[in-house]
Amino acid sequence: MELVGEILRRLKFDKKWIDKDDDAAALKFRGEYIVFTTDSYIVDPIFFAGGDIGKLAVCGTINDLSVKGAEPLGLSLSFVIEDGFSKKDFDKILDSISKISKKEKVPIVTGDTKVMEKGSVDKIIINTSGIGLAKKLIRNSGLSIGDVVVLSGSIGDHAVALLSKRFDYDSNLKSDCAPIFKEVNSVKKYLHACKDPTRGGIASVLNEIAEKSRVKIVIDEEAIPVKKETRAVSELLGLDVYSLACEGRFVCGTSLKNFDKVLKTLKKYSKDASIIGKVEKGLGVVLKTEFGERFLDWPEGKLVPRIC
Amino acid sequence: MELVGEILRRLKFDKKWIDKDDDAAALKFRGEYIVFTTDSYIVDPIFFAGGDIGKLAVCGTINDLSVKGAEPLGLSLSFVIEDGFSKKDFDKILDSISKISKKEKVPIVTGDTKVMEKGSVDKIIINTSGIGLAKKLIRNSGLSIGDVVVLSGSIGDHAVALLSKRFDYDSNLKSDCAPIFKEVNSVKKYLHACKDPTRGGIASVLNEIAEKSRVKIVIDEEAIPVKKETRAVSELLGLDVYSLACEGRFVCGTSLKNFDKVLKTLKKYSKDASIIGKVEKGLGVVLKTEFGERFLDWPEGKLVPRIC
Repeated sequence: MELVGEILRRLKFDKKWIDKDDDAAALKFRGEYIVFTTDSYIVDPIFFAGGDIGKLAVCGTINDLSVKGAEPLGLSLSFVIEDGFSKKDFDKILDSISKISKKEKVPIVTGDTKVMEKGSVDKIIINTSGIGLAKKLIRNSGLSIGDVVVLSGSIGDHAVALLSKRFDYDSNLKSDCAPIFKEVNSVKKYLHACKDPTRGGIASVLNEIAEKSRVKIVIDEEAIPVKKETRAVSELLGLDVYSLACEGRFVCGTSLKNFDKVLKTLKKYSKDASIIGKVEKGLGVVLKTEFGERFLDWPEGKLVPRIC
Repeated sequence: MELVGEILRRLKFDKKWIDKDDDAAALKFRGEYIVFTTDSYIVDPIFFAGGDIGKLAVCGTINDLSVKGAEPLGLSLSFVIEDGFSKKDFDKILDSISKISKKEKVPIVTGDTKVMEKGSVDKIIINTSGIGLAKKLIRNSGLSIGDVVVLSGSIGDHAVALLSKRFDYDSNLKSDCAPIFKEVNSVKKYLHACKDPTRGGIASVLNEIAEKSRVKIVIDEEAIPVKKETRAVSELLGLDVYSLACEGRFVCGTSLKNFDKVLKTLKKYSKDASIIGKVEKGLGVVLKTEFGERFLDWPEGKLVPRIC
């Protein structure tokens, strides 16, 4: 994420597009915003409990549009495939893409396929880009002191489901991979900021929102919904659960006046939706634990590779 | 191209988007068309005479929007990079992207970077997607009997420049890799159809336009501009020059009334711009040679790999 930020800053010359970051950009057009996003998926394994690379790609792009307050209009789909890749697996991926695209009523409208010789790419890479329309943008710089921070469901399940498959560890856990458009849409009028914690997990997302809004976010560790198995596996592997990727969750900020409405609505989608913290004067993200307070920093070192 | 067509037909359920194909799709919005396109670039070598993978990606996406009659609004840029890829080469690619994006005033607005472990991807893959706006679409089904077919410059130079580098063959030839927005834009009001001959060359593009327009295109072989060196190298390698990729050319159809204006304007950009044929009643693409007539079929067999 740091690298792409650096790249975009280096290429920057245009002022019409706003909210340009790794996840999306927006352009005012005829009183609305065209929102545009892209992501390449290199996930390993390509099939995992709760999803596959195709579902992941479609959901990821729908979600990047959704957290900006946009309604997805259409997606592009670009495959890079290793020569000799299993036709059966490819069909499974296409079926999965077709199913989620139809269910969410977000059409795949244009695409590309490239084949690379055996050994020059590992199985398959998918890029999905997407266009959406927003009447009002949700911007990550919008948190105010006194706001309440809400998390839409349990964290880390995607990363742990994927790692379990990678290490052949017997687990009942499923990836949280899912489109979040309906959830975000149902509460978006109340939101001051919103972001989905993918690579870098909530540690990354909370720091980004705090930094851009120039506030301090104080998180209550006890309140963060983490499934037992997710916690167990992440402890076993020595991974920080706050840095683990989700693929169907979002963090949002709302006012003291509206947080109960937001929580009540989000609870309809996931019983784990929770108030996890509040916004105070200051900078950074603070985690309140039973032993006291500590800063929850940006994820450090190398993140788990090929998780999304 | 066939594969992506099959994929898009399989995923199809939406009627709002039109002109959905491998190259772009369009959505009517507030009296204009939003045009959306995507392409992944896996070119080998990544640096070649006349360009590199970065310039290729930016031009390719600008061009896919241009031939639909759209003005490019913004591009996304997604890198998949092999761990350990040369920082110096990456900087060169970024500089090249920055240069062409600024020159063409088409901003890179959002992006993504993923790193894959050594050996799981060959150096670097770039995906660029793009959004453009068109007041009026140029559709490939628009040719009429009596129309004149124009080619904007010499063919096959990109493929041959790339292959020369790949085979370490000493050549002065440069890739034609270039943005064609200005060229297309300067004549677009006269165009009934327009398409850039990338993978599959003019053989592919002419067949596509003929098929979609349900007409016969008769091409005069003598009139097709092919550089001496391009012809020599393609003969040496046993390649059909009509199937070779260009990355800065377009084929278009215009009326008998307007073709001279189109040609005169295009000559300002390339002295090789030529009238290459006409549109008749019938189906398919016919090549008139000094030995008689033959069908110019869709490219057969395996196309040269990793050319774009």
